Amino acid sequence: MLIHTIKEVREKIEEWKKQGLTIGLVPTMGALHNGHLSLIKKCVEKCDKTVVSVFVNPIQFCPGEDLDKYPRTLDADEKLCKDAGVDIVFAPSPQEMYPDAQMMSNDFFTYVIPPFFYTDKLCGKSRVGHFDGVCTVVNKLFNIVQPDFAFFGEKDRQQLIILKKMVKDLNIPVQIIPCPIVREESGLALSSRNKYLSDNDKKNALALSKILFNIKACYNNGITDVKALTETAYSYLNNNHSLEYLEFRDAENLEEKKTADDNTVVFIALKIGDVRLIDNISLARG
Amino acid sequence: MLIHTIKEVREKIEEWKKQGLTIGLVPTMGALHNGHLSLIKKCVEKCDKTVVSVFVNPIQFCPGEDLDKYPRTLDADEKLCKDAGVDIVFAPSPQEMYPDAQMMSNDFFTYVIPPFFYTDKLCGKSRVGHFDGVCTVVNKLFNIVQPDFAFFGEKDRQQLIILKKMVKDLNIPVQIIPCPIVREESGLALSSRNKYLSDNDKKNALALSKILFNIKACYNNGITDVKALTETAYSYLNNNHSLEYLEFRDAENLEEKKTADDNTVVFIALKIGDVRLIDNISLARG
Repeated sequence: MLIHTIKEVREKIEEWKKQGLTIGLVPTMGALHNGHLSLIKKCVEKCDKTVVSVFVNPIQFCPGEDLDKYPRTLDADEKLCKDAGVDIVFAPSPQEMYPDAQMMSNDFFTYVIPPFFYTDKLCGKSRVGHFDGVCTVVNKLFNIVQPDFAFFGEKDRQQLIILKKMVKDLNIPVQIIPCPIVREESGLALSSRNKYLSDNDKKNALALSKILFNIKACYNNGITDVKALTETAYSYLNNNHSLEYLEFRDAENLEEKKTADDNTVVFIALKIGDVRLIDNISLARG
Repeated sequence: MLIHTIKEVREKIEEWKKQGLTIGLVPTMGALHNGHLSLIKKCVEKCDKTVVSVFVNPIQFCPGEDLDKYPRTLDADEKLCKDAGVDIVFAPSPQEMYPDAQMMSNDFFTYVIPPFFYTDKLCGKSRVGHFDGVCTVVNKLFNIVQPDFAFFGEKDRQQLIILKKMVKDLNIPVQIIPCPIVREESGLALSSRNKYLSDNDKKNALALSKILFNIKACYNNGITDVKALTETAYSYLNNNHSLEYLEFRDAENLEEKKTADDNTVVFIALKIGDVRLIDNISLARG
């Protein structure tokens, strides 16, 4: 069922809560692909009722980013959700979520601000304010849907770590369920932004996963020095790549690692032309 | 029932929710007086179950403020609550609410930040960060207790306006119930901080309510010019008073008023010695 208003979602939720049903939420920006589908399937399996939100959240885009051209495919999204057994597709308008467009800055709107230590690095460095927008909208969605479980992909792992921290700090009564990255056979991590890539870009995009897989292989072979592991990356890069970061960080609190261990996640971001792609891999074994 | 842990509160709440009972929350910092009692009575009357939280929230005190000497009277508070029919007195330790005392700054902790336009004025001007701490802890309490209704006194009217804004912006599923200021016969608004006042201070403290009552009387007599209304205040002030502000602002969004109307609230803060007192009055008629 496609719902556009907060009021209608609340009515359904209240009905379900009264029946003692468990509720799962999969927050998305739409343009759903098999990565999202894996989250949705997990949610449908685990929860009595599944809500998928489809909302391109303006306040998590920075000036100059792709808010306007971000792919919007609601009809296809709705069909995919229906086939997967989703109970509600919640697709509010920007006006529904932010009634006064002139009042969306932190001068006039309440924000949920994750800790600076978690947001001043990796994607937060180039996307200033991005995670403030993410935490604020996810908090709103949690308050609207009141889910028992919420599903987030490990593809956006900094986001996942920050949201787990938010839930803990603010005592939000929801359990975050992390879901593994889904990849094409080539290794490329699925992303709605892959739609921006030409065939040639796509070949170049394989550098991300190749670099990460190679680092993991080297780590599994006993190399733990981060400098040495980092150096293995450069052979995969060419003139089409603009590397934004390649960093080794703690899986819980994003502290920098000098020596890799099983609690380490390797994060990479690079640009191919105008398209910014991210990927990551955990060095945990087994 | 006195409860100190989040876990135990959650268990009780879950039980009540399953029974379909409505839950009311009265958040306090303890040192309960008849002002609090009026909120508690309203809550007991309106809701099936009443939770009173007693927590002196460290993150809403600024450096140099009275965090350490703020009155703590838990035994008396518990008795007052019991007599009033409260179901749970939730009195967590600082460690329970902020498990890592070293990690309470916004470098390491998620904050709920109300809009600057609401916090850069009145009490927010001298108490920088105060309302960030208030919104963060109230958000936590809402997530822990999940109340249908929450009761706040109009004594802290800037706080009340900010919390209403937070609830609206973040779609928090709670209804805020404002409760009128309770005054001594003398006119002095009840406050836990009145305990700091000597007998002589208390006499001087009457200036706040006298100024406000006089302004309201002048307004009722047809004076609407804010400058003229403000001037009526000075005859009540003497060398023992240090006036922090006397301002006329919109009851919804705290915009400054040049001309008073029924949507105007008059806010006053003044210091008597070390003790900072606040009061306010709505010019709404009837």
